[in-house]
Amino acid sequence: MTRTLALAALAALPLIATPAAAHDLEREELFAAQHNAMQDDTAWEILRDLTTEVGPRLGGTPAEARARAWAVEQLTALGFANVRVEDYMMPTWVRGHERAHILAPFPQELVLTALGNSGATPPEGLTAEVVGYHDYQAFLDDDPSNQAGKIVFISNQMPRNMDGSGYSMPFGAPRWVGPNEAAKRGAAAIVVRSIGTDNNRTPHTGNTNFEDGVTPIPAAALAVPDAEQLMRIVNRYDEPVKMHLLLTPRQIGEQPSGNVIAEVPGRDPDAKKVMVACHLDSWDNAPGVFDDGAGCAITAAAAKQIMEMGQPERTIEIVWFGAEEVGLWGARAFAEAHDGTDYHVVAESDFGADRVWKVTTDLGEERKAEADALRAALAPLGIASGEYDRAGGADVGPLRAEGAPGLSLRQDGTRYFDLHHTSNDTLDKVDPEQLRQNVAAWTTMLMVMAGPVE
Amino acid sequence: MTRTLALAALAALPLIATPAAAHDLEREELFAAQHNAMQDDTAWEILRDLTTEVGPRLGGTPAEARARAWAVEQLTALGFANVRVEDYMMPTWVRGHERAHILAPFPQELVLTALGNSGATPPEGLTAEVVGYHDYQAFLDDDPSNQAGKIVFISNQMPRNMDGSGYSMPFGAPRWVGPNEAAKRGAAAIVVRSIGTDNNRTPHTGNTNFEDGVTPIPAAALAVPDAEQLMRIVNRYDEPVKMHLLLTPRQIGEQPSGNVIAEVPGRDPDAKKVMVACHLDSWDNAPGVFDDGAGCAITAAAAKQIMEMGQPERTIEIVWFGAEEVGLWGARAFAEAHDGTDYHVVAESDFGADRVWKVTTDLGEERKAEADALRAALAPLGIASGEYDRAGGADVGPLRAEGAPGLSLRQDGTRYFDLHHTSNDTLDKVDPEQLRQNVAAWTTMLMVMAGPVE
Repeated sequence: MTRTLALAALAALPLIATPAAAHDLEREELFAAQHNAMQDDTAWEILRDLTTEVGPRLGGTPAEARARAWAVEQLTALGFANVRVEDYMMPTWVRGHERAHILAPFPQELVLTALGNSGATPPEGLTAEVVGYHDYQAFLDDDPSNQAGKIVFISNQMPRNMDGSGYSMPFGAPRWVGPNEAAKRGAAAIVVRSIGTDNNRTPHTGNTNFEDGVTPIPAAALAVPDAEQLMRIVNRYDEPVKMHLLLTPRQIGEQPSGNVIAEVPGRDPDAKKVMVACHLDSWDNAPGVFDDGAGCAITAAAAKQIMEMGQPERTIEIVWFGAEEVGLWGARAFAEAHDGTDYHVVAESDFGADRVWKVTTDLGEERKAEADALRAALAPLGIASGEYDRAGGADVGPLRAEGAPGLSLRQDGTRYFDLHHTSNDTLDKVDPEQLRQNVAAWTTMLMVMAGPVE
Repeated sequence: MTRTLALAALAALPLIATPAAAHDLEREELFAAQHNAMQDDTAWEILRDLTTEVGPRLGGTPAEARARAWAVEQLTALGFANVRVEDYMMPTWVRGHERAHILAPFPQELVLTALGNSGATPPEGLTAEVVGYHDYQAFLDDDPSNQAGKIVFISNQMPRNMDGSGYSMPFGAPRWVGPNEAAKRGAAAIVVRSIGTDNNRTPHTGNTNFEDGVTPIPAAALAVPDAEQLMRIVNRYDEPVKMHLLLTPRQIGEQPSGNVIAEVPGRDPDAKKVMVACHLDSWDNAPGVFDDGAGCAITAAAAKQIMEMGQPERTIEIVWFGAEEVGLWGARAFAEAHDGTDYHVVAESDFGADRVWKVTTDLGEERKAEADALRAALAPLGIASGEYDRAGGADVGPLRAEGAPGLSLRQDGTRYFDLHHTSNDTLDKVDPEQLRQNVAAWTTMLMVMAGPVE
């Protein structure tokens, strides 16, 4: 069945029962908009150009500043109003050299990468015995005296799934809280198996944090094959494993960063706004395509679709947050400068470039009809109805804590953690068809949430 | 259908017509041997232990020497006779630092790796304009005056296929002959798109060669996503592309290397021998699992299967060649020290760890019946009959030039060039079931070629 026929068939179905609380969305209008979005390559072009012309853009660095300048130029050229940057300062960490070498019993190099906020080894590196654990609990259960002065190695295998369940806990524990705990136990350093689902020699970086008063130790993620190799050596042989580790990252103090903001002005200046968001920064090892150039491209392309239809009732605010990866600095600065209760809804796209498969909302009981209208409008795109009391998006978290209602257009994350925070997060991984489906989903969401376009 | 039932069904078929020239191979004996090989994990254990306990083993280096010592110990422990090393000396190249940075118009790092025999940049690197070509012919067609003093960039996309067609020519041309040609044209350096079928940021190294009298220039392979990024920048923008390149490999002169040899002694000491071969060395960026630890594991495990059945008529010679990757030094030394006409047949396994799908022979017209008997015996393993005038195997090439007949058990190479010469050539990529099918195929081949086991 061609798309035209499919749309015709859908148009013949009974009207979507739009509740009184939601505005009247004509089915033909909806299908036409979805059809247009599915033909549009604006998102692809934004994503291609950002990741080619800027490339990697670590929060707080000159590369992120170049990304902001690029973003202002592009968002202006796309026709958005009130394009601006809101600046803030942030403590900034930068990567140095990184190298690991098993000295005994079987000399060989291992591939790893420092975690954000990792401490540094001496300039010549450090040499210590490795003590290995299959998971975070086994590390906790062992006596700290077995860990003091050693390189702690924590392995655990993150399972592949669609929604990223388990990324933070339990599978992310070695990265999130392992370094701090190992430092407190007197470990010389810590290496963890990458929190990822691939088996490429492209290790997964990501932030870690040390409590106040705890001196950061060198902390790195091994590529999955290297973690398996090291665990094999630790497990199968009754010999001490000695490793030489070199990590020379640095904290370079407070640096400028910023959030880039643009608008589609609404007809009613007093109406609460609709925010569509992403984060503009990326890790330093890749041009940040899935994480999160795609989110910026999708949300801007959807807002542009609305703008081309006319003027919505509510103002659509596009926010490309800064410095998400390295500690949500942009999100926190934004929430401090703005009021979460000014928003009708806030939503972020930050889970790759694959298709949206589920919608969840957290609009409250009194807006259930609106939540249902959204579900009905998204259904033709193959998007399932999800929870009514849940919404995600790291950058909109602080605003939601201030009372902003949220929703999520959940993407298929089956391969997200193959690429996440690795050097492999590059343009070639994008499926343009799935990217366009995202634009159609976000356009649909805006048609429902931002009120009638005239 | 279970395997037992399948074998019973096959046993009920008419007898394989074994020609007079080949020995009488009982069908039950054949099926039992194939069944045993398909249950045996000897190959897996050899492969796991070589790649864990030795790891990467570049020809001419101490790591390759450790691999030889490991091999002698293991082949002896497996019960083979006359285990020995035949030494030779070889010129040796070692990798240094490697880094590429686009300076303009869009500053960013690219991932690349030096090709074997690459020249070095100055210690601080070199900066030059990039001149890019879509393929080798376009590079040849351009005027050398456009290339002198520049960094030549040659891109071409190697297609994925089953048998590796096109790896040497035409798709390998940028790597094999590009650097020499670029040096003659006065280029400052050359970077090529990796000769590979993946899109990971794990560049493919590999040897290149410079003619006598041509001074080697820095020569490296970009990871596929990086080559695409660079080509996008070269093509889409009307601005000069400036790159900083740092490559510090070194030629460290003549170093010791060697071939490791072991035997299953035959009942007839005057009969021509059967050689099963692989290469023990690997590139320096990976533990060399597909290339070619698997070949060593498969051939040794198959010879061990024969040894456990009894004594074959002909001596089986197992040769784990040294220094294949970096110029076939082991193969050439062996052919100088031995006589190709002493062999009934020579065969090498050097195309990964995936299943054998085709057999080809080059035994001559007078041994067609034997070639047919081999085909009939391999058929139950799902192995197709291929050419009668073709055989491969880089390390057995020099012996074949001296008159040794050859055959090939061709492996499915569909994913071989995803991993080939990259850091990603690690143990986790192996499918143990396919590895065992290889052992069954090589066991079968030896049953046909080495004469009756008693």
